[in-house]
Amino acid sequence: MRRPQREALTDVPERVTIYEVGPRDGLQNEKTLVPVEVKAEFIRRLVAAGLDTIETTSFVPPQWVPQLADSAALLGLLGEVGRGRNRPVLVPNERGLEAALAQGVQAIAIFGSATETFARKNLNRGLQESIAMFAPVAQRARNEGLWVRAYVSMCFGDPWEGDVPIAQVVDVASQMMDLGCDQLSLGDTIGTGTTGHVHRLLDALDIKGIGVERIGVHFHDTYGQALANTLAALAHGVSVVDASTGGLGGCPYAKSATGNLATEDLVWALDGLGIKTGVDLEALVETSVWMAGHLGRPSPSRVVKALAGSSGAGDDA
Amino acid sequence: MRRPQREALTDVPERVTIYEVGPRDGLQNEKTLVPVEVKAEFIRRLVAAGLDTIETTSFVPPQWVPQLADSAALLGLLGEVGRGRNRPVLVPNERGLEAALAQGVQAIAIFGSATETFARKNLNRGLQESIAMFAPVAQRARNEGLWVRAYVSMCFGDPWEGDVPIAQVVDVASQMMDLGCDQLSLGDTIGTGTTGHVHRLLDALDIKGIGVERIGVHFHDTYGQALANTLAALAHGVSVVDASTGGLGGCPYAKSATGNLATEDLVWALDGLGIKTGVDLEALVETSVWMAGHLGRPSPSRVVKALAGSSGAGDDA
Repeated sequence: MRRPQREALTDVPERVTIYEVGPRDGLQNEKTLVPVEVKAEFIRRLVAAGLDTIETTSFVPPQWVPQLADSAALLGLLGEVGRGRNRPVLVPNERGLEAALAQGVQAIAIFGSATETFARKNLNRGLQESIAMFAPVAQRARNEGLWVRAYVSMCFGDPWEGDVPIAQVVDVASQMMDLGCDQLSLGDTIGTGTTGHVHRLLDALDIKGIGVERIGVHFHDTYGQALANTLAALAHGVSVVDASTGGLGGCPYAKSATGNLATEDLVWALDGLGIKTGVDLEALVETSVWMAGHLGRPSPSRVVKALAGSSGAGDDA
Repeated sequence: MRRPQREALTDVPERVTIYEVGPRDGLQNEKTLVPVEVKAEFIRRLVAAGLDTIETTSFVPPQWVPQLADSAALLGLLGEVGRGRNRPVLVPNERGLEAALAQGVQAIAIFGSATETFARKNLNRGLQESIAMFAPVAQRARNEGLWVRAYVSMCFGDPWEGDVPIAQVVDVASQMMDLGCDQLSLGDTIGTGTTGHVHRLLDALDIKGIGVERIGVHFHDTYGQALANTLAALAHGVSVVDASTGGLGGCPYAKSATGNLATEDLVWALDGLGIKTGVDLEALVETSVWMAGHLGRPSPSRVVKALAGSSGAGDDA
């Protein structure tokens, strides 16, 4: 299989942790209902391909996200593979946390919004009320010894409000981290962010005391900027990157939105830079092709498109 | 229309010159034969959208590229709009140059290969023989006062040879520039390059005395790396970027290859960084939608996909 020519740089992290969101953020926006057995197999394949951290599902009310209504059954099927501090699940409130704890979950992710409007649309309450809703969830999770991640959505633009002031993102992120979270994920939910924006936001978070070692980045490729923005974050010292195998998913609030950064496209970029990820790209591409068959449409990942069906150098010549 | 939040950086060029390759490199790989009147209108629209430098067509033998067999007729239709030092045409040999000169062309581009195999496949002669073929073309063009660009293909990987040593690229690039060319364009013809590779090649060219002020970069998005690689080049001081409106084109030797970097995706990134391009993004997107209608397929540009049909902020919410 073709690989990038390795030309390493010295001013980048030696290793990047890919936080794989395909099974949750990816699948939740897919209209085709995927059988629970297929989801379990998807996660097993991702583990086999070398992905370390995988967000497996969410414990939100079934009517919010019908695709993930099978979360308890999925974890039941997965057994030990679905548990551990590197198998977080998304939870919106104490009820969701209870359901997750009942399944033996050891890591969770909560999800705030950088804007008032998206908080109301996504969480049905104001920005401050939503943080107040997450406070007891984070507290209880900490008491139970769980690892906790805080997503913040709409950090780089909002479909209703337009520009989002950096100070506002820093304020929300600080409040979320003050709940006792272990990791922050900065979400460009509609994909409008650009590389200067990434640097400026990370600068501002650093001044506030939220260092890059606690920050992950989550870019969508709606405007083709996801990989460039991710590499801008790495240049800034970030070493946790959210990505979705095969580029599954997107934002239900952004029409025609292309989905998350494809894990394969990220791995290609990091391989070329000599940055370790632990991922077997060939196995990952095979997984995306397999999943595309279940979804009935080709993967939007460029690497998957380029490599699927070609077996080696010169094969496409 | 939605725009990126502008968060400028100080360590990037104030202005970038987009070298638009859609009418030539883009269209030459399209199977649908485009009428010459449509090509002329395409170029007029690109000019109206603010693109300064546009490669209009090529004067290669018609059997090589049937799509561009109408180059003389196209320039006839375009009149003054199609002439000038910022309207180069591709020429392979002295015969092509004669035909271009007969049309009053004032700028040309010649095209070498960084690898022996691609030289033989694309030019039907060895690497050194192909440079020897270009020598009298460049000489004659200089004598006529023309502006001359030198493309070098396969700078970041070759479908037959695999890795391409940086020293080999530097050697070919130096020989091409020694013919008296004004500008060098580094081509990642199969799209496999990554950002570290970009930095290392530019470092090596700089040591050889080919400074960034004479270098343009030409990335294909086959593996999703085109925009990231382009921004890596800008960080290195490059300020001339090849792009294709709507992401038209690709490499005929790379199966399933996604095409050139889309001009719209590039403009989005540069707008966000506060870098001037002179381009009216809305007019450009309209042009891509119009051209997609003629080609009978949607544009692969992510920005075009995201913006076409949405009229403003919140519209896709």
